[in-house]
Amino acid sequence: MDSSSFPVVQSWPASRMAEAVPFEVQQTALAEETPISLVYNTMQYAVMMATARDIEDFCAGFSITEGIVERMEEIKSIEVKEGAGFIEAEIRIPAEPFHRLMQASRRMVVGRTGCGVCGTEDTAQILRPLPTLPPGPPTSLASVRRALGELAQHQALNKEVRMVHGAAWCGPDGEIRLIREDVGRHNALDKLIGAGLRAGRNLSDGFCLLTSRCSYEMVQKSIIAGFRTVVAISAPTGLALRIAEKAGLTVIAVARPDAQLLFTGNVLA
Amino acid sequence: MDSSSFPVVQSWPASRMAEAVPFEVQQTALAEETPISLVYNTMQYAVMMATARDIEDFCAGFSITEGIVERMEEIKSIEVKEGAGFIEAEIRIPAEPFHRLMQASRRMVVGRTGCGVCGTEDTAQILRPLPTLPPGPPTSLASVRRALGELAQHQALNKEVRMVHGAAWCGPDGEIRLIREDVGRHNALDKLIGAGLRAGRNLSDGFCLLTSRCSYEMVQKSIIAGFRTVVAISAPTGLALRIAEKAGLTVIAVARPDAQLLFTGNVLA
Repeated sequence: MDSSSFPVVQSWPASRMAEAVPFEVQQTALAEETPISLVYNTMQYAVMMATARDIEDFCAGFSITEGIVERMEEIKSIEVKEGAGFIEAEIRIPAEPFHRLMQASRRMVVGRTGCGVCGTEDTAQILRPLPTLPPGPPTSLASVRRALGELAQHQALNKEVRMVHGAAWCGPDGEIRLIREDVGRHNALDKLIGAGLRAGRNLSDGFCLLTSRCSYEMVQKSIIAGFRTVVAISAPTGLALRIAEKAGLTVIAVARPDAQLLFTGNVLA
Repeated sequence: MDSSSFPVVQSWPASRMAEAVPFEVQQTALAEETPISLVYNTMQYAVMMATARDIEDFCAGFSITEGIVERMEEIKSIEVKEGAGFIEAEIRIPAEPFHRLMQASRRMVVGRTGCGVCGTEDTAQILRPLPTLPPGPPTSLASVRRALGELAQHQALNKEVRMVHGAAWCGPDGEIRLIREDVGRHNALDKLIGAGLRAGRNLSDGFCLLTSRCSYEMVQKSIIAGFRTVVAISAPTGLALRIAEKAGLTVIAVARPDAQLLFTGNVLA
């Protein structure tokens, strides 16, 4: 979908800006938001606003982190089509997870008919059970600092628009192995997870680096993907840390190349 | 609800942090996320993760900006109760908007059964019709700069946690008249709009100041609330600007006290 006709970067030319004298009028590159409609088999499940790039990675990651499928092999195909003003992604999954998805949707309809609202969740989904992460070698502080120092040069889209989030998978030595960007932080992480798992990579080897805050959903997605350490540039929330502690996820946040805070878990000094 | 037993600020004491030597271990104040269940009459409509403060304002603003009611007088009562791990807000609305809400929910169930996913929207809701704003005197640049300069001292919660968003209503002279804060930028704006409309204020008199990015939903909510100018500290998206242009909303963004960019509409030099 990198050949999509949907723009990822939008320029806002000077001629469209008002002639307000004291403003420095200039062409500005902006990020674009595009509706992505996710259809499982025949059922339209969700429409997400995202950066129209790496759509297959996004669909794969979203399917895993939302618990729609448990393993990447359950995704039989992802077909991406362009609609009028939106992108439609048709994701083929086997009968069993599809029935589970329909059941869950039906249960939600009984419990509450509401949907279509950004940020909407039912409480069961918020408090959904998460696996406990298997223990492993702690991430080294040196590698965290290396990744933080090298992050900016890997954010290709952000260099243009300076307003998109990035999610990166870093090796145990701190090398940035994979990065995905999106106007939404959840989407960036879903894209990263999808890209990694589609390529058959073991995400628990190394750590996850986020340019954003570390809210509870970022922690949930990271745990489901198998990351054992998350490093976030901005702050975590209280709920995110309680979920991380319970699952055994190490959280390093408020993280800049020269200073970081360790909130849960441990790190190799 | 300011007397809620749900914490708004969570401290993460040093004793819970691992003993990783090179980290400066210290108590850190964090923002908390609390599930707010919104029940219209008897129907549970949505669960939003928010800062457990100004819940009535949030319910009122959300009801207006989501188009559930058109005027504040349609909200008969808002009752806020504490559940086990969440807050329940019961919002009483008249039969007509309630039937409309049920119809809309039913239509969504037919179109797509999916819900319970953060960021989920159906395309109709994304592209929903918005009013055209009536023309009025442009905001003066001096007042925008004054508000930007005085903003930080009004962000009471952010002084503690440095990770929550703020939405402020500023007078034509740039005085910050009202501010609301939340861990989510959409919630902060809904709280501000709810607080203003509950107090019977005319929000089109003056402008709206946001500490966040200006994505399409922030613009939608601002237009519905009647703001004619939005000033955002961070960048707008392309979609947000197209929606703003169509409705006649002035958008000033990438706005710091000493430099701002005018993207749509006009400003008084």
